Amino acid sequence: MFMAKITGSVVSTKKEDSLTGKKLMIVQPVDANGEDVRSEEVACDSVGAGIGEYVLVARGNAARSVFAEPNSAIDSAIIAIVDSFDK
Amino acid sequence: MFMAKITGSVVSTKKEDSLTGKKLMIVQPVDANGEDVRSEEVACDSVGAGIGEYVLVARGNAARSVFAEPNSAIDSAIIAIVDSFDK
Amino acid sequence: MFMAKITGSVVSTKKEDSLTGKKLMIVQPVDANGEDVRSEEVACDSVGAGIGEYVLVARGNAARSVFAEPNSAIDSAIIAIVDSFDK
Amino acid sequence: MFMAKITGSVVSTKKEDSLTGKKLMIVQPVDANGEDVRSEEVACDSVGAGIGEYVLVARGNAARSVFAEPNSAIDSAIIAIVDSFDK
Amino acid sequence: MFMAKITGSVVSTKKEDSLTGKKLMIVQPVDANGEDVRSEEVACDSVGAGIGEYVLVARGNAARSVFAEPNSAIDSAIIAIVDSFDK
Repeated sequence: MFMAKITGSVVSTKKEDSLTGKKLMIVQPVDANGEDVRSEEVACDSVGAGIGEYVLVARGNAARSVFAEPNSAIDSAIIAIVDSFDK
Repeated sequence: MFMAKITGSVVSTKKEDSLTGKKLMIVQPVDANGEDVRSEEVACDSVGAGIGEYVLVARGNAARSVFAEPNSAIDSAIIAIVDSFDK
Repeated sequence: MFMAKITGSVVSTKKEDSLTGKKLMIVQPVDANGEDVRSEEVACDSVGAGIGEYVLVARGNAARSVFAEPNSAIDSAIIAIVDSFDK
Repeated sequence: MFMAKITGSVVSTKKEDSLTGKKLMIVQPVDANGEDVRSEEVACDSVGAGIGEYVLVARGNAARSVFAEPNSAIDSAIIAIVDSFDK
Repeated sequence: MFMAKITGSVVSTKKEDSLTGKKLMIVQPVDANGEDVRSEEVACDSVGAGIGEYVLVARGNAARSVFAEPNSAIDSAIIAIVDSFDK
């Protein structure tokens, strides 16, 4: 899992069926101080997260398995909204 | 998933059977401003994307599962054509 | 597997069901000399590790499979507390 | 998938059974201009590729599945010989 | 697969059951000239490799599958001892 901040969303009409109805969010990977650590990615939202919120993102089979089928094309998912990073 | 721009294609005669009939596209990973973020990769097209278009690319089992069998050698797939990045 | 030091934890109320009851720890990847090697990540603790301890972290299906179900959203797990790095 | 140039091979007597009889090739990841993009890796050849040729390499389950069993230790496979990169 | 040099080992008493009895080796990823290419990782030894030897390391499901059960927490395995890199 990595920490990220939601910075936007992707609009796509022509896409794989299993992405239909999914919120495609642009996520900026950050560290626990909120600093950017590498380039943006895209993840499917599974917890109703909004722009500006800090979240946790999972990759691979874990990302796919949090969505009911059809879910085949999903390899990255927002799985938690962060209340706080405690250090 | 990562954002990318299609910059070309790969021609290959001698290849794994499951790649036969698949469009092998050269994809340049970008951020939501269209800036290059790392080196080019290759992905199989599943949505009829063309050179110059911005797309989303999935990796791993997700990439394979968007193609009917035979699909064994596929570990990267273009799964959406981007209409817009909204930030 | 990578070596890491636990530097904090994540508090999250709104999250995927399979994360309920899991300790979400902030892990700082290090080398065998304890030097930071890249940005922090988050992993689910499976061995009762605490802040300041050196640990081993596994990713992907291996991470998920060390937890009983429900475990679907887990892609990173703390799987060992390090007694010593012997070089 | 990533683009690579074959730069050598690995000789290994003591190895996991499923690597027996497999050609272990050293692959230098490149971009579509043939420029090196990161450090060398090793991949099992599935298409009869030779030193100096440009190829496509797949990773993970895709790499394993292009070989008949036993194939368990394979996580990287050469899956195509490139005729041309068209940009 | 990546090339690496074994530079040490990890001692851990409190660990996931499937790591019991496994040799946890510190591996330094290298290129075919033996130059370091990124930070150290840890891999389970499956071929009796020793400190100072050059080896091949596999990741993910491939790494797990070279060990008999229990093997759940393994995501990285030493799968070959290198006799020579031929370039």
